[in-house]
Amino acid sequence: MAQSSFRVAILMSSQSDWDTMRLAGETLTKLDITHENRVFSAHRAPDALEEYIREAEAGGVQVFIAGAGGAYHLAGAIAAKTQLPVLGVPLQSKALLGLDSLLSIVQMPKGIPVGTLAIGGAGAVNAALLAAAILALADASLSKRLNAYREEQTRAVLAEQL
Amino acid sequence: MAQSSFRVAILMSSQSDWDTMRLAGETLTKLDITHENRVFSAHRAPDALEEYIREAEAGGVQVFIAGAGGAYHLAGAIAAKTQLPVLGVPLQSKALLGLDSLLSIVQMPKGIPVGTLAIGGAGAVNAALLAAAILALADASLSKRLNAYREEQTRAVLAEQL
Amino acid sequence: MAQSSFRVAILMSSQSDWDTMRLAGETLTKLDITHENRVFSAHRAPDALEEYIREAEAGGVQVFIAGAGGAYHLAGAIAAKTQLPVLGVPLQSKALLGLDSLLSIVQMPKGIPVGTLAIGGAGAVNAALLAAAILALADASLSKRLNAYREEQTRAVLAEQL
Amino acid sequence: MAQSSFRVAILMSSQSDWDTMRLAGETLTKLDITHENRVFSAHRAPDALEEYIREAEAGGVQVFIAGAGGAYHLAGAIAAKTQLPVLGVPLQSKALLGLDSLLSIVQMPKGIPVGTLAIGGAGAVNAALLAAAILALADASLSKRLNAYREEQTRAVLAEQL
Amino acid sequence: MAQSSFRVAILMSSQSDWDTMRLAGETLTKLDITHENRVFSAHRAPDALEEYIREAEAGGVQVFIAGAGGAYHLAGAIAAKTQLPVLGVPLQSKALLGLDSLLSIVQMPKGIPVGTLAIGGAGAVNAALLAAAILALADASLSKRLNAYREEQTRAVLAEQL
Amino acid sequence: MAQSSFRVAILMSSQSDWDTMRLAGETLTKLDITHENRVFSAHRAPDALEEYIREAEAGGVQVFIAGAGGAYHLAGAIAAKTQLPVLGVPLQSKALLGLDSLLSIVQMPKGIPVGTLAIGGAGAVNAALLAAAILALADASLSKRLNAYREEQTRAVLAEQL
Amino acid sequence: MAQSSFRVAILMSSQSDWDTMRLAGETLTKLDITHENRVFSAHRAPDALEEYIREAEAGGVQVFIAGAGGAYHLAGAIAAKTQLPVLGVPLQSKALLGLDSLLSIVQMPKGIPVGTLAIGGAGAVNAALLAAAILALADASLSKRLNAYREEQTRAVLAEQL
Amino acid sequence: MAQSSFRVAILMSSQSDWDTMRLAGETLTKLDITHENRVFSAHRAPDALEEYIREAEAGGVQVFIAGAGGAYHLAGAIAAKTQLPVLGVPLQSKALLGLDSLLSIVQMPKGIPVGTLAIGGAGAVNAALLAAAILALADASLSKRLNAYREEQTRAVLAEQL
Repeated sequence: MAQSSFRVAILMSSQSDWDTMRLAGETLTKLDITHENRVFSAHRAPDALEEYIREAEAGGVQVFIAGAGGAYHLAGAIAAKTQLPVLGVPLQSKALLGLDSLLSIVQMPKGIPVGTLAIGGAGAVNAALLAAAILALADASLSKRLNAYREEQTRAVLAEQL
Repeated sequence: MAQSSFRVAILMSSQSDWDTMRLAGETLTKLDITHENRVFSAHRAPDALEEYIREAEAGGVQVFIAGAGGAYHLAGAIAAKTQLPVLGVPLQSKALLGLDSLLSIVQMPKGIPVGTLAIGGAGAVNAALLAAAILALADASLSKRLNAYREEQTRAVLAEQL
Repeated sequence: MAQSSFRVAILMSSQSDWDTMRLAGETLTKLDITHENRVFSAHRAPDALEEYIREAEAGGVQVFIAGAGGAYHLAGAIAAKTQLPVLGVPLQSKALLGLDSLLSIVQMPKGIPVGTLAIGGAGAVNAALLAAAILALADASLSKRLNAYREEQTRAVLAEQL
Repeated sequence: MAQSSFRVAILMSSQSDWDTMRLAGETLTKLDITHENRVFSAHRAPDALEEYIREAEAGGVQVFIAGAGGAYHLAGAIAAKTQLPVLGVPLQSKALLGLDSLLSIVQMPKGIPVGTLAIGGAGAVNAALLAAAILALADASLSKRLNAYREEQTRAVLAEQL
Repeated sequence: MAQSSFRVAILMSSQSDWDTMRLAGETLTKLDITHENRVFSAHRAPDALEEYIREAEAGGVQVFIAGAGGAYHLAGAIAAKTQLPVLGVPLQSKALLGLDSLLSIVQMPKGIPVGTLAIGGAGAVNAALLAAAILALADASLSKRLNAYREEQTRAVLAEQL
Repeated sequence: MAQSSFRVAILMSSQSDWDTMRLAGETLTKLDITHENRVFSAHRAPDALEEYIREAEAGGVQVFIAGAGGAYHLAGAIAAKTQLPVLGVPLQSKALLGLDSLLSIVQMPKGIPVGTLAIGGAGAVNAALLAAAILALADASLSKRLNAYREEQTRAVLAEQL
Repeated sequence: MAQSSFRVAILMSSQSDWDTMRLAGETLTKLDITHENRVFSAHRAPDALEEYIREAEAGGVQVFIAGAGGAYHLAGAIAAKTQLPVLGVPLQSKALLGLDSLLSIVQMPKGIPVGTLAIGGAGAVNAALLAAAILALADASLSKRLNAYREEQTRAVLAEQL
Repeated sequence: MAQSSFRVAILMSSQSDWDTMRLAGETLTKLDITHENRVFSAHRAPDALEEYIREAEAGGVQVFIAGAGGAYHLAGAIAAKTQLPVLGVPLQSKALLGLDSLLSIVQMPKGIPVGTLAIGGAGAVNAALLAAAILALADASLSKRLNAYREEQTRAVLAEQL
């Protein structure tokens, strides 16, 4: 099965979302976490999305990251179909600057959780880091890499000069 | 098929939504439009929802009305599964007063339309009236009833005294 | 009567709205739905608007689509004068990014419904698709074209690669 | 003509608006400014509203005050039909606390002004005071009464003790 | 007294506001209404503002128009010092797009009214038109000019083609 | 001079604000900081406010705390008239829940600072604590009392049990 | 070490938060996940919070859930001190209905992720469910219990009647 | 100790914040107030921040100014660790234009005050001016310089011409 070597699936609603979501992919790559990036629409191709989720689960994916703008509902639709952890990244929208994206993802009803990160690029990076934190619970080697990443981050902040 | 005598399906995400959505049902009843009221969850029971949509379509339903609060996505999920007209009623939410409900319904992506009405009770009544307007396009008798309803409404407004 | 061959009237408040509303026109054209595009102001030329609505109804228009920004009220003013279905497209405004346009259209009072779509271009496309869904209820040929459009849309989404 | 003795017309969209708009009436009464209070709907009875505006103008009304909630558009509809000054009072709405009312009134397009006051009761009082300020420009006696009202107001504030 | 030939005073908080407020001036000029444009700060030079208001009143100014962004309070400060009609134009702000400007002007407390127009350029034009409507109550010639302006505006809207 | 024994002046726009602002007074009392509580209106009695500020400065007041709701502008008006530190407490408003109060106070223009605290009761307490922090810079005894207050606060938090 | 038998730590900023956060605890209990509920303040007792995090980590806690209102920052402060997954529940605030709580938790900067759930009770339940999903990745028995919970939830939704 | 000659510490979360925060530094320089500008992260390097605060206090810093965007919490984290006055400057954010930054800083819980200034550049200047007002309470020479600054500011406003 094609997906079998991936631990994280990064899904988004259109190619243009990749500008932001690539930051999630790059962060996972830095942490040596295998992942796959795919475009799916919860509304325009719901059956294909469901099929992908089934295959991904069977292939060993452990965390889903979904980036979506406006009322795309991608994260919620995934969370409705899997009990694996789902993380949502609200994408900056043109009209309401991402407030619509944020509320459409975070205000999920009782019973179907989506762990929501910040709007835009910071959220994409943090979705990857939260996925890493989740996977690290049962992966001591990743835990060390994540620890090293955070220490490097601290060093970088301390080195910032005006 | 059980649904075969209904022209409008009113769906909502939980029983508590009925407090508001009953106004849609009552308005349809006044206009003599057959309808069915059902609770479905796009997230917690997505397969049952899809099955219902298939049966409703086969049974002759012509318009779906969906009431939902927060990021329930019920209207969008229906619109993803049918090409019949779907009308959405954002329900008053506790935390953000319905702004989350409104944005989660109205900001649907290109390709999957949901005609959205006002937040709360006014929206429920208006969803019924818009459904009536749609059905009246091919139903001269309903068109007359709708016209009478609007004239009565005008009379009532004119009769309001301080 | 000049309008007699149009099924949809697309109205907007100024020429500059055409940048967005042309997407509604193009979508209707793809679906082979006759339509007319006109500039009207509910405030600055209310009588001309009312006259146009009367003529459009007589000429066979079945759905009105109104695009407006700020508190233009175009959609509501049309809905006050016709019992045909009225769909509203909130246009992106400079000051409040379309939040004012959205609330001014969607929060219509009980009795006068406007089916509201998303802010901006996605809303314009979706207004056309919802109009198509409405017309397709009594037009089997259009129903097939709409079905084909949606299938093509699904294929396009599935073909999107990163 | 019935209206001939009124200088200000206070219009509102439904009887329930009177709870707030009575504050405008009471303030005008204190300043000895004749006024009439009426319920009209720009959407549900647009022709009656227009007829009333014509009669009011002919009868000597000089300022219109319009109170409305949600996207009722009453103030804008009046301003479209008269060149007399129109003042708008956004009424507290249940869903969005009056933000919808405010934006629907204040964000009027270029060409049709509505002088908008605060949401709710403070706005109703202030609409009356602004109407008084307008009428006082050509009425020295009213100018003195308004001056006395403001001085009394100052005294009352100064007398407030904790 | 220098101001004696002006009927409207347009005040703003800084030179940069003139980009927007000049639209008020140009509209008054088209309607042949004398006016003066001045920069004043309610906060940074409150005494000079008060002195100007006194002189303007003595010189025959009848309406104040104040343009301000953020929490500048210029309109409210003028309204606290005069009982002449004060109209406020919220200017587009960088951070919150004018929502702060709007709320800081329109939400005036009971007792001190400011008639508030739309955010930005449309508001500047409309402040001039509302000032004209106010002055026209006692100036038949201006009333005719205003009527001609509105008719020209209607013609221009009707002539707009796509 | 009556004020001479007060170090902090707590001003508010009406008696009803005292419900919230008394929390500022009580906090100052706990810290043994002399203070005076007064009702003033920047709009309805601007001259009395200015006179009070002059007297307060002469009498030894070192910090002003101003509580106001809506667009009352009390804090900004004080800051325009004194170069002493001014702290603002946005009061909960009925219509917009304090968002208007917050933006009207915090978005002050460049040149006239108001240190703004949280909306409502927490803001009132914190205004008192910030005033204490300011006064403590030159008052070692108060610095100790403030330190004790914070330690007590920490103990109280640690003692909270579920 | 006292914490050693807990897998989830539920932290909140004050006892009053427990009204909402108890829903997280009850949900964990239903799923047979050991947990501890504690009150901590990131601001008023930062050292005690840090010490608790160290002990919790050592004792085997694997997920932190933090509920906070306003700008309490509890979730962010925890995330700064641990690399374990941190989930945030924005609590309904009085002034801004939880919008402040939501933005203060979800808009975390790049580098320090907090998986944010819905405002209020739904968010508390969902934080527990997301914690369960995370723990279930390495706990087949919990995975079955979670699956049973979701199936029961589906059955309950399907059984809802109007 | 290196910091011993500084009276104000300007802290920010990343180098990019300096574009805005330099305005605080420049204003302090104009007023001849010694200050130090540093980048610190409350989340990514919390221990270094705490250590800096200790050293700054020991070295004689009397006021902290913290600029931060999104939910960075820098100001609150400082206020949790010192009882010196802390002033917060919300920085313009890309997604929500600074509304998130503002609410994350100003809505601090009871007990830990942050005096918050306007979003962006005006806030940075005003933080410096408020710091000056605070320091001037015990520094007659600075009080004169601040007075001169305000007089110069008044002159500049009065000299603005259109």
